Amino acid sequence: MWLALPWRSWVKHCIIENMERTLIADTPKKVGEKVKIKGFVHVVRAHGKIAFADITDRSGILQVVGRDDLAALKPQYAVEIEGTVNARPEKMFNDKIETGKVEMFADKVTILAKSEEMPFDMGGEELNLELPTLLDYRSLTLRHPKQKAIFKVQAVIIDAFRKALLEKDFMEFQAPSIISAVPEGGAEVFKVDYFDRQVYLSQSPQLYKSLLVGAFERVFSVNQIFRAEPSVTTRHLTEATSLDAEFGFIESWKDVLEMEEYVIRYIFAEVEKRCKAELDMFGATLPKLSDKIPVIKLREAQEIIYKRTGRDCRNEKDLAPDDEREICKWSLEENKSDLVFVSHFLTKKKPFYVYPDPTDPTFAFSVDLLGRGVEWSSGGQRLNDYETIIKNIHEWGLKESDVELYLQSFRYGVPPLGGFALGAERITMHVLGLKNVREASLFPRDLERIDTRFSSTEDKTSK
Amino acid sequence: MWLALPWRSWVKHCIIENMERTLIADTPKKVGEKVKIKGFVHVVRAHGKIAFADITDRSGILQVVGRDDLAALKPQYAVEIEGTVNARPEKMFNDKIETGKVEMFADKVTILAKSEEMPFDMGGEELNLELPTLLDYRSLTLRHPKQKAIFKVQAVIIDAFRKALLEKDFMEFQAPSIISAVPEGGAEVFKVDYFDRQVYLSQSPQLYKSLLVGAFERVFSVNQIFRAEPSVTTRHLTEATSLDAEFGFIESWKDVLEMEEYVIRYIFAEVEKRCKAELDMFGATLPKLSDKIPVIKLREAQEIIYKRTGRDCRNEKDLAPDDEREICKWSLEENKSDLVFVSHFLTKKKPFYVYPDPTDPTFAFSVDLLGRGVEWSSGGQRLNDYETIIKNIHEWGLKESDVELYLQSFRYGVPPLGGFALGAERITMHVLGLKNVREASLFPRDLERIDTRFSSTEDKTSK
Repeated sequence: MWLALPWRSWVKHCIIENMERTLIADTPKKVGEKVKIKGFVHVVRAHGKIAFADITDRSGILQVVGRDDLAALKPQYAVEIEGTVNARPEKMFNDKIETGKVEMFADKVTILAKSEEMPFDMGGEELNLELPTLLDYRSLTLRHPKQKAIFKVQAVIIDAFRKALLEKDFMEFQAPSIISAVPEGGAEVFKVDYFDRQVYLSQSPQLYKSLLVGAFERVFSVNQIFRAEPSVTTRHLTEATSLDAEFGFIESWKDVLEMEEYVIRYIFAEVEKRCKAELDMFGATLPKLSDKIPVIKLREAQEIIYKRTGRDCRNEKDLAPDDEREICKWSLEENKSDLVFVSHFLTKKKPFYVYPDPTDPTFAFSVDLLGRGVEWSSGGQRLNDYETIIKNIHEWGLKESDVELYLQSFRYGVPPLGGFALGAERITMHVLGLKNVREASLFPRDLERIDTRFSSTEDKTSK
Repeated sequence: MWLALPWRSWVKHCIIENMERTLIADTPKKVGEKVKIKGFVHVVRAHGKIAFADITDRSGILQVVGRDDLAALKPQYAVEIEGTVNARPEKMFNDKIETGKVEMFADKVTILAKSEEMPFDMGGEELNLELPTLLDYRSLTLRHPKQKAIFKVQAVIIDAFRKALLEKDFMEFQAPSIISAVPEGGAEVFKVDYFDRQVYLSQSPQLYKSLLVGAFERVFSVNQIFRAEPSVTTRHLTEATSLDAEFGFIESWKDVLEMEEYVIRYIFAEVEKRCKAELDMFGATLPKLSDKIPVIKLREAQEIIYKRTGRDCRNEKDLAPDDEREICKWSLEENKSDLVFVSHFLTKKKPFYVYPDPTDPTFAFSVDLLGRGVEWSSGGQRLNDYETIIKNIHEWGLKESDVELYLQSFRYGVPPLGGFALGAERITMHVLGLKNVREASLFPRDLERIDTRFSSTEDKTSK
């Protein structure tokens, strides 16, 4: 049956001498050999009759030496080059990169795709662009090594989050984005036309992950969350990636902190192990941790802030940005920890499912993780007693029918539970020391932009 | 500094004899020992003064023997039980489960959460519910072992997809759900109110994954996609999980098939290895594969269908559901393969970025993967030449400004590329032999339902 013939062997049979591609990172092992590389032109330098081009692929960067056809290349061209790998003279070694001991002499240069002129210098170690330009040219700027590094680190953070929880028997689930009601109030929620109905985009998979504890005991999810944040700040996006975990049969709210700390340490360890080059590019060091992340109550934090600064926030219902920065400073100075858990926020300022501390129900087993001056995560223990949940739903002024599926789970028995949600972009931002959360999102959405700036959409003549 | 004291040791210090939890799967290793288990009551059988309860946790199921306090338990209660693990007499072994050689004698039974009466039998091997009931009681029915098994298999499928691609140097990215324009036509797209603008929910991350090839060369993403499917079918959801991959520097469209086949085989191997018990529950066997998944062109497929059935679809622009079933039957009979690639769909019926076959540009390097009678995936080679893309955008009647970021990438050079998208729910459905794709979605959304049925929302009195 010819149709089922392995076509690969047929193709190989027909094409004579179609050299296999060599990844750039493998070229040091091929000194003296003929190879074919594929990649993008990073920079080209022509010196009279001889030209040098730095070619990058997903594995690394390589200096190629050639003549006119190499000199004719421009930055960002996609190319295929055949040639011979040679050892560089020792004094020409570039010790900064893996492939710095070799170079390639080009025999044949094939252009796979041309590029327009660069609107700015893409060849330097830094991009040095203002944020709007960085984002206006997102498809181009993402190709800069330092930009790519951000998203490699982010991928490792997310991968480490999953691995950490899989090792603790958590099951991954896919959280829905479309929801039919907004039980926690609709100020910052996006509305969706759903056939003849109005529905919403989820601000958090909280109710879903909680109800699933009744079935799977331990669950996590990596999902998009949506917030109609009407102001432009350095730390808010309208669409963000949330790393959510929830688990049952806890003994106390401190089990939640312990699990979250385990996950955070796991993430840092993976980033340290797998992203050394990326951290170096940013001169970044991972947040400092002591033996245990300190845990302080809101009121204790406020007292500390008052003592340290004279600013009296002791009766405030939450920490202001200034307070978050100060308590992180305190944590680093007094506990040698860049991270600090703040617990016991006011029950009434939290959602209906928050678990009040029985010793003083004004405050709840609700915990934020602060890192390097800002909130990274929120979490805590949740109510699991059905009657209490129903009572709270009425006290909080909500409708039972808006949370029917969630209530159903707790009607059929859910053990003591808790969990947390980490913001993927915020962790990326603070691990690398970025100034704006938009830099930690491939395609940041905000009040002013979805890919292109709204103000530019109408008057921009398409090229 | 007392605040930084490791609280765990402090807690341990204060609580006397707080026995650590033993997972049920570990009980066979603890015969003769006192243990504490935590879990849900599956079934209770009282025989006079003695009672038996099957308790489940995330690791397994265990028979517990006790007296009145055990007899008083009801299905789905969340409980904590302390007692002694005993070996069962050999003739009482239950060989079907890991823990069938032991049972536990309960000393102390603590109810962590009560449950209402079951509305239907949750104790049997099968649920035997109609789909609407299965979904109306989603929070409860998800606790049935067979329902849980579906989502364990789905988690393994998704995990395997990621692992397969990570091993091939792909980078994971987070695809946005909110998009500002619908370049491929807006018939089945959901509209979102975005401050004072109308924006949309993404039907596919196609343009994002393609543009990222210019930066990262190889990318994948696990993301929600949205389709305003106005009819109720057994295979459509309005929100689904898409497994997307895209990569550059391909030699030909067949590289895309090869990568997709590698991923599919990887997924099957992982499911086979990690989900034996789950497959057994469904009496499911993985799709049959021969040495190579057969590849046939649309017109060849139509010719085969004509010869086999006399149904003349040879001039149709696509395969109808009947045709898909027939070509899968043919593939199994003639090629011993439950899967078959169908290529060369009509260029004009495909999106603007499809790559026409140079030998006959009426047909494109566009490929569907069919499995067990339905489409599992679509993919193929994409255009990478900027001028051709621009020409097509005009021919397809689209606006350049709607795809500005995508065009920007191709203006700055993108190598030959291709990719594919697999539907997570569809694969789960067909691996397990489910009849409706809704069974393979934790929280299926369709024309009639988001969690609760729309028809029931208004007239349902909240409990």
